[in-house]
Amino acid sequence: MNELIGQLTNVSLGASVVGLVVAVFFYFRVKALPEGNDTMNMIARFIREGAMAFLVREYRVLAVYSVAVFAFLFFAFNGQGEGMGLLAGGCFLFGAFLSLLSGFVGMKAATFANVRTCQAAREGSKPNALLTALDGGAVMGLFVAATAVLGLAILYSIYANDPHLATVLHSFAVGASSIALFSRIGGGIYTKAADVGSDIAGKVVEGIPEDDPRNPGGIADNVGDNVGDVAGMGADIYESLVAAVVAAMAIGLTADASYINGLFTDASMSDTATRAMAVTLPIFLSGVGLAVSIVCIFIARALRQNSPAMVLRAALIVPSIIISIVSFVIMPMLNVSQAVTWAITAGAIGGAIIGLITEFYTAWSPVERVAESSKTGAGTGVISGLAVGMESTVVSLFIVAVVGFIANLVMPEGMGLYGIAMGAVGMLAGTAIVMTVDAYGPISDNAGGISEMSELGSEVRDITDELDSVGNTTAAIGKGFAIGSATLTVLSLFSAFILEVNHVRVMSGMEAMVLKLDEAPILIGLLIGACLPYAVGASTMTAVGRAAQSIIDEIIRQFNEIPGLREGKADPDGTAIVDIATKAALSQMVLPGSVAIFAPVLVGFLLGPASLAGMLAGAVAVGASLSLFMANAGGAWDNAKKFIEAGGLEGHPKGSEAHKAAVIGDTVGDPFKDTSGPGVAILIKVMSVVSLLIAPLIAMNG
Amino acid sequence: MNELIGQLTNVSLGASVVGLVVAVFFYFRVKALPEGNDTMNMIARFIREGAMAFLVREYRVLAVYSVAVFAFLFFAFNGQGEGMGLLAGGCFLFGAFLSLLSGFVGMKAATFANVRTCQAAREGSKPNALLTALDGGAVMGLFVAATAVLGLAILYSIYANDPHLATVLHSFAVGASSIALFSRIGGGIYTKAADVGSDIAGKVVEGIPEDDPRNPGGIADNVGDNVGDVAGMGADIYESLVAAVVAAMAIGLTADASYINGLFTDASMSDTATRAMAVTLPIFLSGVGLAVSIVCIFIARALRQNSPAMVLRAALIVPSIIISIVSFVIMPMLNVSQAVTWAITAGAIGGAIIGLITEFYTAWSPVERVAESSKTGAGTGVISGLAVGMESTVVSLFIVAVVGFIANLVMPEGMGLYGIAMGAVGMLAGTAIVMTVDAYGPISDNAGGISEMSELGSEVRDITDELDSVGNTTAAIGKGFAIGSATLTVLSLFSAFILEVNHVRVMSGMEAMVLKLDEAPILIGLLIGACLPYAVGASTMTAVGRAAQSIIDEIIRQFNEIPGLREGKADPDGTAIVDIATKAALSQMVLPGSVAIFAPVLVGFLLGPASLAGMLAGAVAVGASLSLFMANAGGAWDNAKKFIEAGGLEGHPKGSEAHKAAVIGDTVGDPFKDTSGPGVAILIKVMSVVSLLIAPLIAMNG
Repeated sequence: MNELIGQLTNVSLGASVVGLVVAVFFYFRVKALPEGNDTMNMIARFIREGAMAFLVREYRVLAVYSVAVFAFLFFAFNGQGEGMGLLAGGCFLFGAFLSLLSGFVGMKAATFANVRTCQAAREGSKPNALLTALDGGAVMGLFVAATAVLGLAILYSIYANDPHLATVLHSFAVGASSIALFSRIGGGIYTKAADVGSDIAGKVVEGIPEDDPRNPGGIADNVGDNVGDVAGMGADIYESLVAAVVAAMAIGLTADASYINGLFTDASMSDTATRAMAVTLPIFLSGVGLAVSIVCIFIARALRQNSPAMVLRAALIVPSIIISIVSFVIMPMLNVSQAVTWAITAGAIGGAIIGLITEFYTAWSPVERVAESSKTGAGTGVISGLAVGMESTVVSLFIVAVVGFIANLVMPEGMGLYGIAMGAVGMLAGTAIVMTVDAYGPISDNAGGISEMSELGSEVRDITDELDSVGNTTAAIGKGFAIGSATLTVLSLFSAFILEVNHVRVMSGMEAMVLKLDEAPILIGLLIGACLPYAVGASTMTAVGRAAQSIIDEIIRQFNEIPGLREGKADPDGTAIVDIATKAALSQMVLPGSVAIFAPVLVGFLLGPASLAGMLAGAVAVGASLSLFMANAGGAWDNAKKFIEAGGLEGHPKGSEAHKAAVIGDTVGDPFKDTSGPGVAILIKVMSVVSLLIAPLIAMNG
Repeated sequence: MNELIGQLTNVSLGASVVGLVVAVFFYFRVKALPEGNDTMNMIARFIREGAMAFLVREYRVLAVYSVAVFAFLFFAFNGQGEGMGLLAGGCFLFGAFLSLLSGFVGMKAATFANVRTCQAAREGSKPNALLTALDGGAVMGLFVAATAVLGLAILYSIYANDPHLATVLHSFAVGASSIALFSRIGGGIYTKAADVGSDIAGKVVEGIPEDDPRNPGGIADNVGDNVGDVAGMGADIYESLVAAVVAAMAIGLTADASYINGLFTDASMSDTATRAMAVTLPIFLSGVGLAVSIVCIFIARALRQNSPAMVLRAALIVPSIIISIVSFVIMPMLNVSQAVTWAITAGAIGGAIIGLITEFYTAWSPVERVAESSKTGAGTGVISGLAVGMESTVVSLFIVAVVGFIANLVMPEGMGLYGIAMGAVGMLAGTAIVMTVDAYGPISDNAGGISEMSELGSEVRDITDELDSVGNTTAAIGKGFAIGSATLTVLSLFSAFILEVNHVRVMSGMEAMVLKLDEAPILIGLLIGACLPYAVGASTMTAVGRAAQSIIDEIIRQFNEIPGLREGKADPDGTAIVDIATKAALSQMVLPGSVAIFAPVLVGFLLGPASLAGMLAGAVAVGASLSLFMANAGGAWDNAKKFIEAGGLEGHPKGSEAHKAAVIGDTVGDPFKDTSGPGVAILIKVMSVVSLLIAPLIAMNG
């Protein structure tokens, strides 16, 4: 590794260590805050224990999975050279371990922060409540971004000049991705089964509000926020960052040297030097993004006296812009063409635009349209939410296409997909702060739940409600970044996969494959790929529906069989519900998760790389659009319900027929936006990463 | 044209003339049947006049559109050679005219047959009622298939040896497709706006059943069945057959001669002879399919004393099997490899399997699952319908992929996509009878509506209900054939497009393009293509929602302002509703229709053939899956509602909360299955056909 490359990598190592230190600092700061009264404490303990119990049981399943994949990789890659099996398997475990670690620590922090946020609200201080929720979220945000950057930087420091660097990076990414997949889907099923189940049973069947202390589903509902929206989301974003960086690195590793040289302004650089720089830039920029995000987190904390909505929205958008500026300054110093800066900027600004579009469709006039349609019943309300979701998909995906178009256009010949990958890195530059703000949401939501269940009164609830509603908006923006960057990342991974296949073929003296779009195997792959997102959608929707049904049955049983529960004289058995949700989530995450892992392996080995490439193309087209559609339709229904509850529809208050219709839309939207939508988005990333990893094993097979 | 080619074309010409003669015979036979009492007559006249008024106004819009496209084609193709502009424009108008003609005649027959079916039921004869509805449908079915085959055979007879045959065929197909697009979308918006509007207003707001004579939306609802499910569906299927045949012919016209020769067992045949045969086979087989279908229609009529469900189901599946057998016998005589027979058989059997899968998901245990979920409310009911729709998409699309895989596998090298196209032709062999049975559905539905509005009593209604319920099942099977064949057709059209682009380039001395899947322009095209089905979905869902809203408002106004209406002493103003639905459908079909036409033109001219190819790939992946999902989810909700109404859920009869929840699912499903789903399916066909037509104009542009 030459000196400059070493220095750039050290920037990332340094940023990630600082990130971890800050995260630990926030962790203990939050933990030291006052916890409130005994009831609050008890409820918080139930939530914490439920969440941890789920995580422990989930990790047990994932341990078995990891051992199996380790064994597969060990044997599959052993044929590739001495020690390769251990290397691939080891890097896989490293990626998986860091994912689990950040999920664990982040969720632990969130389950401390929720009750302390509630307590700050109880003390009447909105800025302190905001700060507590923000710090709690920052533990997750920083851990996620820092472990991703750290893991990649460590591996790169060790293996930069190793011929097996590609396998190292891809195995690490598969570790990160597959854990993310299971965490996201398992967490998503848990949270929405609990939410839908306790909502329907509590509100409709028994006429008791969601967070009423008598509702046996209350604890599970709050646990769900933590395992789904904190741990699941965290694993997802960790994976996004890893995948985006690895995609750009992989293209740098395998692209034609003559193309790579076009990226550099210094014609005297050797092919080796330009390639090394092209591979290092993504790691370096993700480190810079992390550093910028850390600074922005402190700025956001300092501004806590201002309107939370403005502070958090700025926090999401500003880091991406700063990293563009930093890139503009640094690239000339590194003799790198400013084309890279433009690609990053296209990604950064595109991400912000997609975020704002998402916010528009899930918070502004389209939501009012959905609310209006609910006046004539749930049927028209659901129809109009579906229409809004579809419309937002068109606009968002079109912006992604424009970002890709620009990132390709500014690049020198042959490096268009490297540009698209750098666009994705630019979009994800603010990962630490995006995830901070994302985790802030469920923490404030939990704080509200705890205040309700502890019967702290409306003044406390008002504060937590305001924080929570800001969280909904920022979650929408964060989702825009996530899906936009995922789509660009998948396009780059896809191209990296084909480059890798041909790299291996050429190295072995075979001809490079030309994957022509109009060949039957590719088109058949396209159709198979188009099925898969629907397979994940169907199985996750069914899982939530079934699990919610069991929860409803159990809640009704408790109301019928526990004497005094209805009158508030006896305690509900919350752990029974937690148990049902846990079992359902763990058993039903296996099928959709397996689709993502086995489909590329099966198609790759049986039909060859051409059909696999076609399959990935079909999956990304369908998956990107379907996940946007589900996420945004769900967001629109959710906020239409809230809009009516806030009195937005004159003559149709909370409890009216229009409101009931909107609640039905919200119920449909719950698994749409928080289980199936994210599940589909992560599916296409995992399939692409797995394909990239197995590329050398199937390259000769066609 | 050599003698054999001439003979094969004459078979198709002959079959189509026989088809038209039989259609005319049925038309007058039905028209001569007794019409029933004065009330029935009056209602039937309202429906007929409403439907015709819509068609006339729609045709006025389409005339303007056709003139504009004619002008565009005239100028665009005039640069391609002397008289080419007139040729392209003329063939476009010919294709459009035949589409309009068959829609018009078929719908006229359907609006005669509805009341006569009702009268036969009133006379107590189920076989006669079945026969009347079947004959009425056969007019449409035969007209659709016969005009498609006739138009193609006439053009082929004239232009077989003309160098501009490709332009002739593609222009004809664009004429057929774009009329189909507008008819399908316009008719779809009309029928579902009327259905949803009068359902909600009548049932929920005023507590009056759908077909109650006091419901002002009753006439519009029945008009909708005719303009949507008869005229719209007819245009759609006409388009499918034309497009499938043209796709196979186009590949035959441009594929490499050495590949084509591989299809023939006689090595002494010249390149010209093998190519001519490859181009003729699709026309010939569609003619054979038509002849087989005519015979099957007569067999089905003869079996009318048997269970309607069995007769109609067999009628759908048998013709495809017969054509495989005919092909098996004839191919050796023509020195054609049996590979073609296997491809046709794969398509024919695949179509039947997809049909049965569709039936399974929209009529059997999955429907019970949706009904069960409705016990806990509309939210869970809608969730489970969405899950069922997604699951069916996975299975159906996978079968399409398998059919494509087999059709490709059996073919000699380089002819895989010709095989896939022939598979589509095999699936569509029974077009005449599929459309007969499809049109039978809305005729019996209308008969039921007329009997209700004329207050003929429950015995009459029982007969029409049975016929109607069989229609629902057969419609599901027909839909399976339609979407499966559309997907295969689009893959072939797609490949024909790329062949044509390269054919033109090579002819002009340029290099052929290699459309590599991992190039940025193609991937960006893929994302743009992924947006478009959602654009059509969003605009059609919104259109139905809005138009239904206006209809609801108008119905409420009439109940409030027309004295005596509520008590049944005054007549509702049905024409006001017809007028609202007509205006809404005509104004709102323009946007989605334009997307299909302009998107390929814009992308083709601005970004070039590579991005356009990527766009088509993205659109087919997303469009095929999305349309299956919407069609089948809608079917599942519809039948879940009917299942509950038939007493399938013990303790939850019609009118119970579970039933109300299922009605909400049905409302959501209405535009899903009958407006947006078909609209998206036809979108991808139109885009492909338009791309194929403009291929020579943009071929140099990349």
